[in-house]
Amino acid sequence: MRVLEIGVAQLGPIDRSESRRSVVARLLALLHRAADRRCTVVVFPELALTTFFPRWFMGEGELDAFYENDMPNDATRPLFAEAKRLEISFYLGYAERLHTQDRTRRFNTSILVGPTGQIIGKYRKVHLPGHADHEPSRPFQHLEKRYFEPGDLGFPVWDALGGRMGMCLCNDRRWPETWRVMGLKGAELVMLGYNTPLHYPPVPQHDHLQSFHHLLPMQAAAYQNGLWIAAAAKAGVEEGCALLGHSCIIAPTGEIVALSSTLGDELITATADLDRCSEIRDHIFNFALHRQPQHYGVIAEMPDPVSGSDSHKPSGSP
Amino acid sequence: MRVLEIGVAQLGPIDRSESRRSVVARLLALLHRAADRRCTVVVFPELALTTFFPRWFMGEGELDAFYENDMPNDATRPLFAEAKRLEISFYLGYAERLHTQDRTRRFNTSILVGPTGQIIGKYRKVHLPGHADHEPSRPFQHLEKRYFEPGDLGFPVWDALGGRMGMCLCNDRRWPETWRVMGLKGAELVMLGYNTPLHYPPVPQHDHLQSFHHLLPMQAAAYQNGLWIAAAAKAGVEEGCALLGHSCIIAPTGEIVALSSTLGDELITATADLDRCSEIRDHIFNFALHRQPQHYGVIAEMPDPVSGSDSHKPSGSP
Repeated sequence: MRVLEIGVAQLGPIDRSESRRSVVARLLALLHRAADRRCTVVVFPELALTTFFPRWFMGEGELDAFYENDMPNDATRPLFAEAKRLEISFYLGYAERLHTQDRTRRFNTSILVGPTGQIIGKYRKVHLPGHADHEPSRPFQHLEKRYFEPGDLGFPVWDALGGRMGMCLCNDRRWPETWRVMGLKGAELVMLGYNTPLHYPPVPQHDHLQSFHHLLPMQAAAYQNGLWIAAAAKAGVEEGCALLGHSCIIAPTGEIVALSSTLGDELITATADLDRCSEIRDHIFNFALHRQPQHYGVIAEMPDPVSGSDSHKPSGSP
Repeated sequence: MRVLEIGVAQLGPIDRSESRRSVVARLLALLHRAADRRCTVVVFPELALTTFFPRWFMGEGELDAFYENDMPNDATRPLFAEAKRLEISFYLGYAERLHTQDRTRRFNTSILVGPTGQIIGKYRKVHLPGHADHEPSRPFQHLEKRYFEPGDLGFPVWDALGGRMGMCLCNDRRWPETWRVMGLKGAELVMLGYNTPLHYPPVPQHDHLQSFHHLLPMQAAAYQNGLWIAAAAKAGVEEGCALLGHSCIIAPTGEIVALSSTLGDELITATADLDRCSEIRDHIFNFALHRQPQHYGVIAEMPDPVSGSDSHKPSGSP
């Protein structure tokens, strides 16, 4: 038994005017609840320090207010300090800005902070959803493709917290490649945060399936890779935009073992035995025994720049 | 609208002593039910002509009785003829044996037969489950790795029945790579058959999840690739071994739109509009827009022959 007490700290809405000091006070309150429950790690949402700002089309100047140049910084140092005092590790999502010699780079980022307050790992969101240009006909924008570069770190894993840890963010969870890459690297717990509007303007006829489409790929991924998943929502009606709740903890069997039932600040917890990953990985999904990668090549092929990757001709013959 | 009326023809158990003539009569009865329902395609199970023989350890001679050397052959010609007369296409799974110059080859195979009675496509099961050696401690064997070679055709797709068709078999359905390869090739309907024992001897503590683990990866795959899935069970207690039912038809949203509710011969049907695939593929899973294959390389890497493919060192750093 290698047991983690996992806490997932869902956040209710963050107004655009809410200060980071106020948000960090909410994170601290959730951290204290987690300490009361003897959690050893707490997962906070994606972009957990501000409102979900990609819903607005903005110029550079206005946009700057939503990014962090350093981590920790003045606003988040109290969180780092208190987590260290309590010896609780945490996952935190935020908008990262860095200045290189010739340009400014922006990523949708998460970090894993260990029980000594050190940043153990950093992840930058690979699968950015939404669009790059202003689309005024939408009731709200989803400008992640404008405001961030795709992550340049791939899907690393880290030996920490007594096991092998992975991270991803929001839309990454829908893509089986996210999970398989980390599964192949031996991840035993993957943490993520998300901001998921209930309304998806391009295909509104699927809006009633939003929770199903959130849980389904993660449950499948947990089972198909034999790993634990801990997913934290920013939930509720934020600046007029309704966001999905259903923060969850999923076992390597694909079973949901904890699920949030509010749209506000809420802590859910579960006891996760990392040794249970082997119930899946040593048997039905024993990769070394059963995978047939000679037939998977197209998955990692770079797309034809002209026609895209989904333009393959049928290849079969009787 | 490009509409197919899909029939999934589940089979109850086939005794070891049941003749192919008797089995084909059952297939014909299901075909006639499908014709009454105006189906344009019918999906039969995996190894649909015999009992699920990999449950026994057998020598070459005894084993030979379960394979087909030719398709169609005397036993199956009536099925081909009647389907042609009714202008119904069908998917059929069977054990294939072929003699090459220097050896005998055996595959777990499926074919797609068009409305004119011609074989349009052939698929050979890539992901063989089970084990290669006799394990007498099991209550029943699962010797697919002994009795078949892994499929050598990859995952082809075929332009047929008014859309792009794919096939797989049983354990293939659990692997996200199966679906992604066909999804990238533009498959709109994937057909499969399966024989799934309720009891999995290596991990009996998951037996109660057998139906969940059957449906979950297919529902996720339908959604993640925007395609229809039609899956036909061999169900019921066959030679003392209980097999899962839950034959199903799944929409590109991941919703189950038809599900069998018996463990016997049963036809389920659904109306599938292939144009609905675009609701997923043009938006949330627009591959050309959102995939990041530069980070997927490990998925298609051939494993290190010494240590296997799941031996990667953690690659992250803060």
